[in-house]
Amino acid sequence: MCVSAMQTVADVGEFAVIEQIAARLGHAPAHVEVGPGDDAAIIQVDGASVISCVDIFVQDVHFRLDWSSAYDVGRKVIAANLADIVAMGGVPTSLLVGLAMPASTEVSWVLELADGMKAEAELLGASVVGGDIARSEHIMISVTALGDLKSAKPILRSGAQVGDVVAVAGKIGFAQAGLMLLSRGFKSPRAIVDTHRRPEPPYELASAAKKAHSMIDVSDGLLSDLQHIAQASSVAIDVDSNSIVIPEELAAIASAYRADALSWMLNGGEDHAFAATFGSVADVPSGWVIVGKVNAGSGITVDGEPAQASGWQHFSQ
Amino acid sequence: MCVSAMQTVADVGEFAVIEQIAARLGHAPAHVEVGPGDDAAIIQVDGASVISCVDIFVQDVHFRLDWSSAYDVGRKVIAANLADIVAMGGVPTSLLVGLAMPASTEVSWVLELADGMKAEAELLGASVVGGDIARSEHIMISVTALGDLKSAKPILRSGAQVGDVVAVAGKIGFAQAGLMLLSRGFKSPRAIVDTHRRPEPPYELASAAKKAHSMIDVSDGLLSDLQHIAQASSVAIDVDSNSIVIPEELAAIASAYRADALSWMLNGGEDHAFAATFGSVADVPSGWVIVGKVNAGSGITVDGEPAQASGWQHFSQ
Repeated sequence: MCVSAMQTVADVGEFAVIEQIAARLGHAPAHVEVGPGDDAAIIQVDGASVISCVDIFVQDVHFRLDWSSAYDVGRKVIAANLADIVAMGGVPTSLLVGLAMPASTEVSWVLELADGMKAEAELLGASVVGGDIARSEHIMISVTALGDLKSAKPILRSGAQVGDVVAVAGKIGFAQAGLMLLSRGFKSPRAIVDTHRRPEPPYELASAAKKAHSMIDVSDGLLSDLQHIAQASSVAIDVDSNSIVIPEELAAIASAYRADALSWMLNGGEDHAFAATFGSVADVPSGWVIVGKVNAGSGITVDGEPAQASGWQHFSQ
Repeated sequence: MCVSAMQTVADVGEFAVIEQIAARLGHAPAHVEVGPGDDAAIIQVDGASVISCVDIFVQDVHFRLDWSSAYDVGRKVIAANLADIVAMGGVPTSLLVGLAMPASTEVSWVLELADGMKAEAELLGASVVGGDIARSEHIMISVTALGDLKSAKPILRSGAQVGDVVAVAGKIGFAQAGLMLLSRGFKSPRAIVDTHRRPEPPYELASAAKKAHSMIDVSDGLLSDLQHIAQASSVAIDVDSNSIVIPEELAAIASAYRADALSWMLNGGEDHAFAATFGSVADVPSGWVIVGKVNAGSGITVDGEPAQASGWQHFSQ
């Protein structure tokens, strides 16, 4: 893509900006096993493979103080980051946290944030080992996770093969429905609203997917994240909409608000479910739901129809 | 310290907030060799010691777009982070960058930022291996460095011993003088203003300090950072002001603006020089300047006088 001097990030879109930055940074040196472009990077340190990733969270973009408690925010930012490590087949062990906030932030808010971070990290035996704080007008949190591959091969976005089955683990669409409810001023049903406030990635289901050819944390939306796999693996993915069973509670909310529950499930982000491809149905662990297949070609289809054309996805902001 | 619910971060101060967060996070698990409280953390991954740290940089707090080019900002944020790894006796190899920015940010600004990051990282053979971008009202950059100890023992803040000599490598006071000039609308002398825009940590001098008992990156100001060493090591440090030779260019600026050049050198932050303590003068590498000694007791003195009482430092914001 040709870039003129006056193009803005909004003009170009998130993914194109990332691609251009990666191109500008150039080739990775020998100690980098997996560089930019996957859920996490993998580098060699002193003979060990270290898996690491960073996520940033901005007040009023990723969370709102009137919608979420400090504890919820702490759990959410750590969950999103741990999910990236787990989606690579890694075991997160350590977290570094950067926290920028106004001087007027209450100390109790900060300590409850730390409580939430600690609680989420402990689910996987991880802990916060360092950090930095600074002053800013809005709260901004950066979370870096470091993990161990335990001698396993990493599960990359680029590993999908033609003929693979595509499967999903965890709730999808709930965070988007919760966001819609909160946006309209509602705080119930709690089961749905809380999914937006504090996603619960099915870490154990992801860890059980040892035979997955490719895996990704579903943070942008199922179709959008499957597109990342398809692109990295140079394959096409078709999703069978009949395999996506709409949970009763989502259907009820969608009906009440004249919204499309299937669209929430295909396009809603921030659930931190997992999507993966497997060589055979027998390799798909219990608890995962098969939702499609990997074909030759490129792009994402739903029931054979191009997903982008039917408005299923939001590949650029 | 007792904290009431309504205390703000400003009431309590940066260092007390960090202490309270660390206390709330609790004890580090077994794989954590060095946890919160030093320039960087050290964790065990698959038998290797991995050294890592995070720094956050906020527009209009750490940099201003009308003072610094994107390239300068890129170099500065990476330099500050690499200096933390080097101050622990580590060799930085990999960086993860989180970038939050307005949608109106020009793509060219982002790419020049990446150029600056790459150029600074390459000074030490390191590279950016991953990142995340998000939308925010102001630019916020989080940098995480990962490094290798190359089987060396880490050099901690807590290693200073009574009888050690204290030495400094690199420019001090220049970044503060540069900030004063920029604040008053001046863009020269360039040699001083550029030190604020783009500090040049003397990485090689720090790497040569293999026999240092303790070391720290001078980012808060010399006295403030020596206080971190004194506190972590349960010792006192006395600085001999006669050993701090005021460079001619700093003296000239101070004289023109009726400022105190010695105060800049003792209290000015963001130079990213290094301070260390050594068991003997013979252990101090060429290029380092001996500026004081480690005594029994606690706190920092300048020429035997308490530094805090004489207004030398800013331990809390």
